[in-house]
Amino acid sequence: MILKALRYGWLLAAFWSMLAGAAEPALQGTGDLGIIIERSAGRVAIVDTSRNAILGRVGNLGDLSHASAVFSRDQRYAYLFGRDGGLSKVDLLRKVVEKRIVQSGNSIGGAISQNGRLIAVANYKPGGLKIFAADSLDLLADLPAAYGDGKRSKVVGIADLPGQRFIYSLFDADQIWIADLSDLKAPRVEKFPDIGRAPYDGLVTPDGRYYLAGLFGEDGIAMLDTWQPQAGVQRILANYGRGEQPLPVYKMPHLRGWAVAGHQVYLPAIGRHEVLVADTVNWRETARIPVRGQPVFVIARPDGRQVWVNFAFPNNGFVQIIDTLTRQVIHTLEPGKAVLHLEFTPRGEAVWVSARDDNKVLIYDTARFAKIAELSLENPSGIFFTARAQRIGF
Amino acid sequence: MILKALRYGWLLAAFWSMLAGAAEPALQGTGDLGIIIERSAGRVAIVDTSRNAILGRVGNLGDLSHASAVFSRDQRYAYLFGRDGGLSKVDLLRKVVEKRIVQSGNSIGGAISQNGRLIAVANYKPGGLKIFAADSLDLLADLPAAYGDGKRSKVVGIADLPGQRFIYSLFDADQIWIADLSDLKAPRVEKFPDIGRAPYDGLVTPDGRYYLAGLFGEDGIAMLDTWQPQAGVQRILANYGRGEQPLPVYKMPHLRGWAVAGHQVYLPAIGRHEVLVADTVNWRETARIPVRGQPVFVIARPDGRQVWVNFAFPNNGFVQIIDTLTRQVIHTLEPGKAVLHLEFTPRGEAVWVSARDDNKVLIYDTARFAKIAELSLENPSGIFFTARAQRIGF
Repeated sequence: MILKALRYGWLLAAFWSMLAGAAEPALQGTGDLGIIIERSAGRVAIVDTSRNAILGRVGNLGDLSHASAVFSRDQRYAYLFGRDGGLSKVDLLRKVVEKRIVQSGNSIGGAISQNGRLIAVANYKPGGLKIFAADSLDLLADLPAAYGDGKRSKVVGIADLPGQRFIYSLFDADQIWIADLSDLKAPRVEKFPDIGRAPYDGLVTPDGRYYLAGLFGEDGIAMLDTWQPQAGVQRILANYGRGEQPLPVYKMPHLRGWAVAGHQVYLPAIGRHEVLVADTVNWRETARIPVRGQPVFVIARPDGRQVWVNFAFPNNGFVQIIDTLTRQVIHTLEPGKAVLHLEFTPRGEAVWVSARDDNKVLIYDTARFAKIAELSLENPSGIFFTARAQRIGF
Repeated sequence: MILKALRYGWLLAAFWSMLAGAAEPALQGTGDLGIIIERSAGRVAIVDTSRNAILGRVGNLGDLSHASAVFSRDQRYAYLFGRDGGLSKVDLLRKVVEKRIVQSGNSIGGAISQNGRLIAVANYKPGGLKIFAADSLDLLADLPAAYGDGKRSKVVGIADLPGQRFIYSLFDADQIWIADLSDLKAPRVEKFPDIGRAPYDGLVTPDGRYYLAGLFGEDGIAMLDTWQPQAGVQRILANYGRGEQPLPVYKMPHLRGWAVAGHQVYLPAIGRHEVLVADTVNWRETARIPVRGQPVFVIARPDGRQVWVNFAFPNNGFVQIIDTLTRQVIHTLEPGKAVLHLEFTPRGEAVWVSARDDNKVLIYDTARFAKIAELSLENPSGIFFTARAQRIGF
């Protein structure tokens, strides 16, 4: 009787263990994973850059137009920032949404702190920054972008800085702010006013030193040396913008797409069929490279030898490659309809390109420009690889 | 009878599944893992930089003096290069040696190709380069460092270059070679002779462009611009070396330890109590910073704002921190006896320091220089984090 009970007990335990075991995904490293936004479906595809394959999909993520993502420092989780104010934590190994909150009415991206413990979301409505715990998504701090007479500004161009800090721009208030969350009980905000009209996006250089905000309301770029904030915000590249004879702008370029190669920065001209080159030592313009259309993303291959460029409508079927030694376009690709984004593998041997209206992501060998693989996705837009977890300013 | 057989069949299957399930480690990301060499024990500790903890140990790895490691592109496996010619593939998740071969009599490090498929080992004896498949460790190519009249040179200073290429120096032959393995059936080797006497170590800049080889036999550094190899090897920093009044050198500095911060490179003076600074735009010396002893490793925090330096005997209990904005030593630490190595977390909020003769690894907050944690290890030496998988030239 006892034996029998033991035996059945074993059987039951073993059976449950089997079921549980079957549900447990196989062990794998996470250094070669990534996600691709399937915008219209409110879904992400989890991908593997070693096998050039889609490993699975995770849905019910809300409005993913203009969505972006950051990764946990162990590279297991993706944090997605949706346009609808949604913040979702996706487990890349179990392929599930571990948690999802709607934290504002309208948001435009976010960042993860240097130590990986804080997620910051830049909100349009209500305007401000919210800070969440990376593990639980509990709200830890709320920093309204208040200015003037009780108004609140849209927040744009957020990036992480060393120390548990975030830097961002106030579109309506013409300001740059740095929030320091190293003491969560007493967050400090340093404010830089009158930086120029209507900053619309921003970035930090790969070393986390310089913050640059593009201005929608006037020409030039606002630049803050975060190592010497006492020097204040300077205006650089005075000719950057629509210039004296404004051209129609089909799509504002993304500043995140700027490329730093060696000590030169490559940036999309606004409205013009040009990529601008500037020296990061003195922040002066050094060259203008004619390209096929109005550039949107201008991204350096990780070694800086090539810069890849995609374009606004009607040239959004092309991608051009600039050689940074000769500063000339050396190749033109036609990956498909509506090329929205591209992402290099961490060491740059390949690049993934999303062609939204062809429902494809194309993978190219960056040495020979040969197509290696093609994946089917529903209206793919942003592509984000886990290597971002280990970089500053992403 | 059938039922009974079925039941016992189930039981057996379930039982095996349980056993297997119990042995299966928990799912985890691999972006925050690393290994620390426990040299005298021939063992590595697997560590987690989020929890500041040792997750386990893997032994039977042979002679690990002067051992180094690279990581698979999924960041699951470490490849260890032992002094005894051993090449070991360690699974960081299962914490086992997946495969180990002894591929030469004496080796001095290795590298992993850009696409992650090839492991290259630099051998002293017999002198040359061997190429192995990253998955199986099968030998794919053997490239003897043959020169002169049937002689073979020791190979030193190996690093990966974009494309499936490796660059290295021939200590006995005064040459730099670049091996191109993009076609495994027909490897190509490009040779640069007469680069200066006795290159003893080398590195590539973080963008993979410049290769620099330190010379044991004369002053100065041999430099090759791999984007313009037709320009040949140039001699830079003519005063680098022991100089006109040679000082006793207690330990040759590691070139891998050089730091590029912004467009300045920080390098250990040989035999002198100085860190040298040179401009990577024109390769001229721009400063000399007095430090506590003969520098061994000179390593930049990932954002380039700080450079950390350890020293040869008798000053090997100190670590000094240089601020790269003011170019002055801003702090001195005494982590413990015989500080051999240090490694920053990927985004630089912390640094791990091995104090061999105190059997400790100390973890410091790089913003405040406060000790965060201390781990017990047996004669720890090299510390290697998985983020190296995603960088060029490591």
